[in-house]
Amino acid sequence: MTKLLGGVEAGGTKFVCAVGTGPSDIHETRFATTSPEETLQRVLAFFSPYKPELAALGIGAFGPLDLRQESPTYGFITSTPKPGWQNTDIAGVIARELQVPVALDTDVNAAALAEGRWGAARGLSDYLYITVGTGIGGGIVSGGRLVHGLVHPELGHCLLPKHPDDTFAGSCPYHGDRCFEGLASGPALAARWGCDPAALPADHHAWDIQAFYMGVAIANCVCTLSPQRVILGGGVMAQSQMLGKVQTATAGYLNGYVRHPAIEENIESYIVLPALGSQAGVAGALALAGQKIEEV
Amino acid sequence: MTKLLGGVEAGGTKFVCAVGTGPSDIHETRFATTSPEETLQRVLAFFSPYKPELAALGIGAFGPLDLRQESPTYGFITSTPKPGWQNTDIAGVIARELQVPVALDTDVNAAALAEGRWGAARGLSDYLYITVGTGIGGGIVSGGRLVHGLVHPELGHCLLPKHPDDTFAGSCPYHGDRCFEGLASGPALAARWGCDPAALPADHHAWDIQAFYMGVAIANCVCTLSPQRVILGGGVMAQSQMLGKVQTATAGYLNGYVRHPAIEENIESYIVLPALGSQAGVAGALALAGQKIEEV
Repeated sequence: MTKLLGGVEAGGTKFVCAVGTGPSDIHETRFATTSPEETLQRVLAFFSPYKPELAALGIGAFGPLDLRQESPTYGFITSTPKPGWQNTDIAGVIARELQVPVALDTDVNAAALAEGRWGAARGLSDYLYITVGTGIGGGIVSGGRLVHGLVHPELGHCLLPKHPDDTFAGSCPYHGDRCFEGLASGPALAARWGCDPAALPADHHAWDIQAFYMGVAIANCVCTLSPQRVILGGGVMAQSQMLGKVQTATAGYLNGYVRHPAIEENIESYIVLPALGSQAGVAGALALAGQKIEEV
Repeated sequence: MTKLLGGVEAGGTKFVCAVGTGPSDIHETRFATTSPEETLQRVLAFFSPYKPELAALGIGAFGPLDLRQESPTYGFITSTPKPGWQNTDIAGVIARELQVPVALDTDVNAAALAEGRWGAARGLSDYLYITVGTGIGGGIVSGGRLVHGLVHPELGHCLLPKHPDDTFAGSCPYHGDRCFEGLASGPALAARWGCDPAALPADHHAWDIQAFYMGVAIANCVCTLSPQRVILGGGVMAQSQMLGKVQTATAGYLNGYVRHPAIEENIESYIVLPALGSQAGVAGALALAGQKIEEV
């Protein structure tokens, strides 16, 4: 009998639970995120019938998370602003109740892993998944492994040069108009132009400024990490004009310095959209479970 | 009998060859870099007597290098501006003549590895070595392994915001005043102030501007890679006032966003000088050899 993977997409608004062998073969359920007690009870109730067949379970969660294996609060959601969820032992409760190996990581790391296993980065050892939406975050895979380090990457808070036409004061409470998220997240766009960004026409100057910030940030990632591919997700990338603009901007800011055909001749397949789309969250959780089995 | 490690620090000006078990137990020789034929003959002549005892040999070289294992020109110095050295098969010649496993990497990656094995990053899995001198480069270790990716990192060419007092046009032929190297390398400092940077007094505004660029660049590395420690080498760091200024600047630009005691309470042991100093090059080559043995 084939062993099953379990996945929990633990979002601030909704939870998705799934069992299956991969994103094209799953049974799933979704429900609103309420209190930790109630929400985790629903998670356990979903997985209980599958307990004998579950090989591992992955959780891609909102954060911040304690991911340090040696920490007494490993596997906890820590100082989240979400009411009631501070210091919630999400990974430990599930592992104990279901008696299954559990892997926990950030939602964006999980999505990055899923794109490597089943999506736009299949077969690659070094790549980057960046999501530009309500916030800006990045999942980085180097040498086939997610980058964790001291805490975890916070790509949205890299400091960027300001576009010369941009007088917006920025939306980041920590960095104002200095960082990527403060300048180019969905809320930054909305505040700069005083409207829902989705209402701005495709030829509005807003998208040139947006492409400037994204292009500079990606060029910096290329110079720092030398990825084999960059995957761009999140609500802002739903604007169909953005991908081409960002590809052009990134190549322009690198300006021929990093010599490789992947960048110089094939930027269209170097900077790409995610292949898993709305399935990224749950696929990411399954990918974490898959990786856990390989470790065990 | 203890097996020996061999190391070649292959610089554009001088070569250093060494055999030993680590940086505190070596026999070494150094000579000027002349033609590839003559220089490599001297390398082979140095190592020949040790051939039966050599377990592996590491080369930390000037570049650019072809480090893609699957490439037909793997182990070559490629498009270097150094006359006569274009397309030199440095790793292959040494491996064939000495019949020993050879590891080649960039000088800055080798130095990063040495700091992890014997220096300021001992025991760490995720750290960064940045050198600020004639050029700016970085060696990155993530999950215990050097980051290579598509080509290799080019940390000096990350794009940075410009200091508000800085009117210098920049020294990078590719990025002018937009990138870290164009704004903060030794030659950039010399051109901005019209003198040897070492002649500028310690309280000159030059060092505030320098600390701004280094602080922003390091803050961005922290947000991208989440290193456990950052090691700063190169000639500019010989200015004793710089380390403290850069620590303060980095913490200021992060502005409390990345919550960890290593950054919030111990920035003095988070951003540090290299422990190996002038031995970094040859120690790096030995570290590459040591890593090669572990792989074989």
